[in-house]
Amino acid sequence: MEFLRGVTPKETVELEELLDASRLGCEVKVNGMVHTVRDMGELSFVVLRKRGGLLQCIFEEGFTQYDAKALREESAVEVTGLLEQDARAPHGIEVRVKEVKVLSVPYDAPPLSIGKWKLGTSLEAKLNYRSASLRNVRERAKFRIQEGIVRGFRDYLYSQQFTEIHTPKIGSKGAEGGSNVFKLEYFHRPAVLAQSPQFYKQMMVGVYDRVFETAPVFRAEKHNTKRHLNEYTSLDFEMGYIDSFEDIMKMETGFLQYTMRLLEREYAQELQILNLTLPKTEEIPMVRFDRAKELVAGKYSRKIRNPYDLEPEEETLIGQYFKEEYDADFVFVTHYPSKKRPFYAMDDPADPRFTLSFDLLFHGLEITTGGQRIHDYRMLLDKLAARGMTEEGMEQYLATFKYGLPPHGGLGIGLERLTMKLCGEENVRETTLFPRDLSRLEP
Amino acid sequence: MEFLRGVTPKETVELEELLDASRLGCEVKVNGMVHTVRDMGELSFVVLRKRGGLLQCIFEEGFTQYDAKALREESAVEVTGLLEQDARAPHGIEVRVKEVKVLSVPYDAPPLSIGKWKLGTSLEAKLNYRSASLRNVRERAKFRIQEGIVRGFRDYLYSQQFTEIHTPKIGSKGAEGGSNVFKLEYFHRPAVLAQSPQFYKQMMVGVYDRVFETAPVFRAEKHNTKRHLNEYTSLDFEMGYIDSFEDIMKMETGFLQYTMRLLEREYAQELQILNLTLPKTEEIPMVRFDRAKELVAGKYSRKIRNPYDLEPEEETLIGQYFKEEYDADFVFVTHYPSKKRPFYAMDDPADPRFTLSFDLLFHGLEITTGGQRIHDYRMLLDKLAARGMTEEGMEQYLATFKYGLPPHGGLGIGLERLTMKLCGEENVRETTLFPRDLSRLEP
Repeated sequence: MEFLRGVTPKETVELEELLDASRLGCEVKVNGMVHTVRDMGELSFVVLRKRGGLLQCIFEEGFTQYDAKALREESAVEVTGLLEQDARAPHGIEVRVKEVKVLSVPYDAPPLSIGKWKLGTSLEAKLNYRSASLRNVRERAKFRIQEGIVRGFRDYLYSQQFTEIHTPKIGSKGAEGGSNVFKLEYFHRPAVLAQSPQFYKQMMVGVYDRVFETAPVFRAEKHNTKRHLNEYTSLDFEMGYIDSFEDIMKMETGFLQYTMRLLEREYAQELQILNLTLPKTEEIPMVRFDRAKELVAGKYSRKIRNPYDLEPEEETLIGQYFKEEYDADFVFVTHYPSKKRPFYAMDDPADPRFTLSFDLLFHGLEITTGGQRIHDYRMLLDKLAARGMTEEGMEQYLATFKYGLPPHGGLGIGLERLTMKLCGEENVRETTLFPRDLSRLEP
Repeated sequence: MEFLRGVTPKETVELEELLDASRLGCEVKVNGMVHTVRDMGELSFVVLRKRGGLLQCIFEEGFTQYDAKALREESAVEVTGLLEQDARAPHGIEVRVKEVKVLSVPYDAPPLSIGKWKLGTSLEAKLNYRSASLRNVRERAKFRIQEGIVRGFRDYLYSQQFTEIHTPKIGSKGAEGGSNVFKLEYFHRPAVLAQSPQFYKQMMVGVYDRVFETAPVFRAEKHNTKRHLNEYTSLDFEMGYIDSFEDIMKMETGFLQYTMRLLEREYAQELQILNLTLPKTEEIPMVRFDRAKELVAGKYSRKIRNPYDLEPEEETLIGQYFKEEYDADFVFVTHYPSKKRPFYAMDDPADPRFTLSFDLLFHGLEITTGGQRIHDYRMLLDKLAARGMTEEGMEQYLATFKYGLPPHGGLGIGLERLTMKLCGEENVRETTLFPRDLSRLEP
């Protein structure tokens, strides 16, 4: 009988192993995709794309037993050759190739110049030819940054004794009310796709105190803007035993600080490729919703048209204000009007027209909504009744409160938006692998 | 202006801090849910449920400024008192309570005895009263084990240079063919929910070589069995530059080994609560599909009815065979018949009736399906044609191969099934927070 005992060493080496100086002058075997071929006559420069970065290979007539002219870009190859230093090459190394083994060949040239430093094409084209455009070194770097954000979120929350949960995306009722939900048929019964894990994470506070989830959410909003998606990844947490809703903002600040350090440490190459400067997270200012409106109205000579609403322009100006006045990249805007928040938001006992809730703005764009929730059963029923909402379909959610739940609150972070702002992009589709919007259902 | 600088220390302490011997005899402040109240007259034992475990509190007439009789189970409280040793109490400690602050009160007793060691109720009742049943210490321990599995999967794959991806769950076409997909209307266009991230993870092999995703998948199967769910969490990976499909099984073996060590190290309390013995993962036997059928037919005197199909009973017997013969908890069954695998599976060049694919059985239950995929564009088109399938809706997927893709393969692991087998449960709903099946859409 044959047995498997785990991963076994490979003959081929990865980029970080090639950077080990003791290998210089040695023969190495390396695989990768042919990123670019530059034919200089007797000499050709073939750049391989590996997961760890680019690797320059020299094909030399007489030395290399393969004609670089026969090599098509986006072939997968395995080359054997001598590892040498070259200050001009990526990472300061190159392989002088002896032998080439072609593992696979493309049948057609991609519709985009993958090998260019910047793709220089429209967003539309990038999205239409996604499996080509993402191979570009700058494009793929953005989604490594995205990985770092999710890792940072999880690892920080694990360290803060949160438990990870997985809640269903098909349900009988939406958490945020009737509109904006995608409807489907579930074995002859009407069902909807989850707009957020809100109800479930609150239910789980009674189980683990602190929980988080990183999962897709679905919004059937008919917005076609640069910052809306109809499906996105939401980083959600919910925590019990809070003393005030500031505890939630403090936890988010901690996450951001941890994540920026993680990105600096483990995603330095991607930060360099994208030429990014990380935002400041040491201290994040906190301002009341109404005060923020006044500050912006005062400084930028705007009229406050509606004291209970924040227009996107106002958000942008709040971002600008705090950058100019405090050199702050982030700002927590607190005490949103009750009317603008869902029924489960905790109203401010000092002034119930407002809630103990917040948004986090990053350079003027909302990337998080959070706050304290109502934990008292009667208070929740009263709020539902005051809004003329039905308890139907929420029995299980409401039972959670009937059986008792500690004071708690939480938040949801839009992963693609946070990535977008971190990468300095203007359109959230730039930092979504396969975006879903009003017109896009493919690829 | 006020600023937030991250998480600030709390007056209340958590269980692991209470286990610090230097605190014995000191005054401590602790919060938690009232798990059980046992009234002994002048003395009452109040057990608090905290995220880290249970904590015994002593309420003493004359000493405690609160009457334990007034305390309802599932209240959230904050108690102040003296930390003392008591070998009979959980973790060997207890708090002799001076003061009690009630943070929230329940309005009704839960329909289940949360505080019992074993709930002793039907699965149906557990699922119907989910936000009560999950508060039981044994019930919640299972989902901590589940967390450990997902953490192990991610952390191991990060260490193997995989990149995490987030792919859309709404799409225009299912990866595995037309049936068994949930249909929905997407802004007046027909759409489906993803049965797996298969197409996307293959597309991403061209970008990062190695990718993984941990996300929900949706199967509109009309099975009502103990091991089927209509929505589950799939742990998926896909890796390029494989030398053979054994590389994929080796990677899975590595993941299992890593995860068992992680569970032993960081989830020891949960393993103890559930009284679990972890399965053996040092070496996992590997047997061909046809050979496995023969072995089982021989040993257990069964007739092979269909050489191209594996019945659930046969799977169970394969598990039994390898447990008896090799003391193996897991077994890789390889070379599944081509007919039983999707079009993208790589046929075995030595015998194209079979594929370079495998299932991993855990005590006779399939918890993983994986294998090598076709990476050659023409070969893929031929296979589609041979199956009478249309290329329609797959243009973007097929383009990935047209532009070139290295040899690759991958797998998908059903998280809830793996948790079920690890926890020794018989029904996958026991290890699903909020299961979705033919009859269940709530909570």
